[in-house]
Amino acid sequence: MRDGFKMRNIKMIVSYDGSRYNGWQRQKNSPNTIQELIENVIHDCIKEKVTIISSGRTDAGVHAYGQVINFNVQSTLPLKEIQRVINIALPNDIAIKSIEEVGERFHSRYNAKSKIYVYKILNSDVHDPFIRKYAYYCPHDLDIEKMKRAARLFIGQHNFNGFSSAKASNKSTERIIYSLDIVQNGEEIEISYHGNGFLYNMVRIMTGTLIEIGLRKLPEDVITTALKTGERQVAGYTAPPHGLVLAEVKY
Amino acid sequence: MRDGFKMRNIKMIVSYDGSRYNGWQRQKNSPNTIQELIENVIHDCIKEKVTIISSGRTDAGVHAYGQVINFNVQSTLPLKEIQRVINIALPNDIAIKSIEEVGERFHSRYNAKSKIYVYKILNSDVHDPFIRKYAYYCPHDLDIEKMKRAARLFIGQHNFNGFSSAKASNKSTERIIYSLDIVQNGEEIEISYHGNGFLYNMVRIMTGTLIEIGLRKLPEDVITTALKTGERQVAGYTAPPHGLVLAEVKY
Repeated sequence: MRDGFKMRNIKMIVSYDGSRYNGWQRQKNSPNTIQELIENVIHDCIKEKVTIISSGRTDAGVHAYGQVINFNVQSTLPLKEIQRVINIALPNDIAIKSIEEVGERFHSRYNAKSKIYVYKILNSDVHDPFIRKYAYYCPHDLDIEKMKRAARLFIGQHNFNGFSSAKASNKSTERIIYSLDIVQNGEEIEISYHGNGFLYNMVRIMTGTLIEIGLRKLPEDVITTALKTGERQVAGYTAPPHGLVLAEVKY
Repeated sequence: MRDGFKMRNIKMIVSYDGSRYNGWQRQKNSPNTIQELIENVIHDCIKEKVTIISSGRTDAGVHAYGQVINFNVQSTLPLKEIQRVINIALPNDIAIKSIEEVGERFHSRYNAKSKIYVYKILNSDVHDPFIRKYAYYCPHDLDIEKMKRAARLFIGQHNFNGFSSAKASNKSTERIIYSLDIVQNGEEIEISYHGNGFLYNMVRIMTGTLIEIGLRKLPEDVITTALKTGERQVAGYTAPPHGLVLAEVKY
């Protein structure tokens, strides 16, 4: 940063179809991440090298309507112009939905109060070409009422270690789930998770567990047991990424 | 057909994402058509060589919720089983939505009474990663009321030669448009066409003309003039294929 140049802290809401990316987070030996692509586009467009902070990573194949990012620039270009040139340069499976300047202390990860994730399931005899990349196709009979009863066991503050793929560490695995709604609309089922934070793979493991309970492969009380013991192997499988979307981050 | 074998006339409703195909109709020197792919899958699954009749071709990149096809087979397999094995063998951007056995005289093209096509436009400042393959992105100001007034000029029986890319022939270019509805839902605009039949590229040229009228590049009366004179160059441009879907065929 050169003397006399004031840095602007730019916040953006980003929407992406994660199908063809290797997840959000820039990785040393793995190209094709969304973070790296947007950083490169910003560099090309406004000639500044930036490091993007996001509300959190999303896995390979996971989508976002409302990923929140921020980064510092010296550019004095109008915000709408920055958004416009970046959107033109981005591939059309990524879009900057909104842009604003925020205080220098705003941090999209540390300041995130809660997040909403939505997992979509297509529960029908026949697959649907138009949502094949955005909903997990499950042609088997699902007991939705059983899933709704089981979902209630997640509400509140718990140790979600049993619903995480992360390696053991000293970090807390306590999280709060504020709401978990399962809505059936014809052949489409949407599971919405609202929580103060989510561990690695947590939504997908919670979803896989609910699906296996709906398929009557697991009893409802595996949830209670997995929450109590923190044992990953008690819970269900990790549902595939393409049904999942980061819908909103609240501050 | 061997003696003693009764042919069954099978009718199917097919849904497809046309993005990666070279249109519906099998072509001699052009691979990757939807017709050829389904015929090959049927051959693989039930070991009979069939020729599929469809309600009509769709262009490269055009989608379908309700394309109707029929073909003759000797197979005595239950219908649901035929549907099941074909759906398993099809790529997941094509789906057989329903199957039934119909009378031997049923012909999906000759018996079609009318068709409904829907053209989708995204009219917003920012593109949308999730409908980029299913809606035409138009970021410019569209005068929807003007488009709705202009659309009324298409209703009824007219010579649609000016709205067709077909080469001159002796075939009639008279068609009836029963309804043409333009519905705006937030940033999405859907134009629904219901007619007794559509000439080659007709919906896309009608749509391109309506868009150019909405952009105030063309006056509304080009429609009247193009219908009266039959001159293709009077009408607007051919809107891109990916916004278009064959929604329903009525019999």
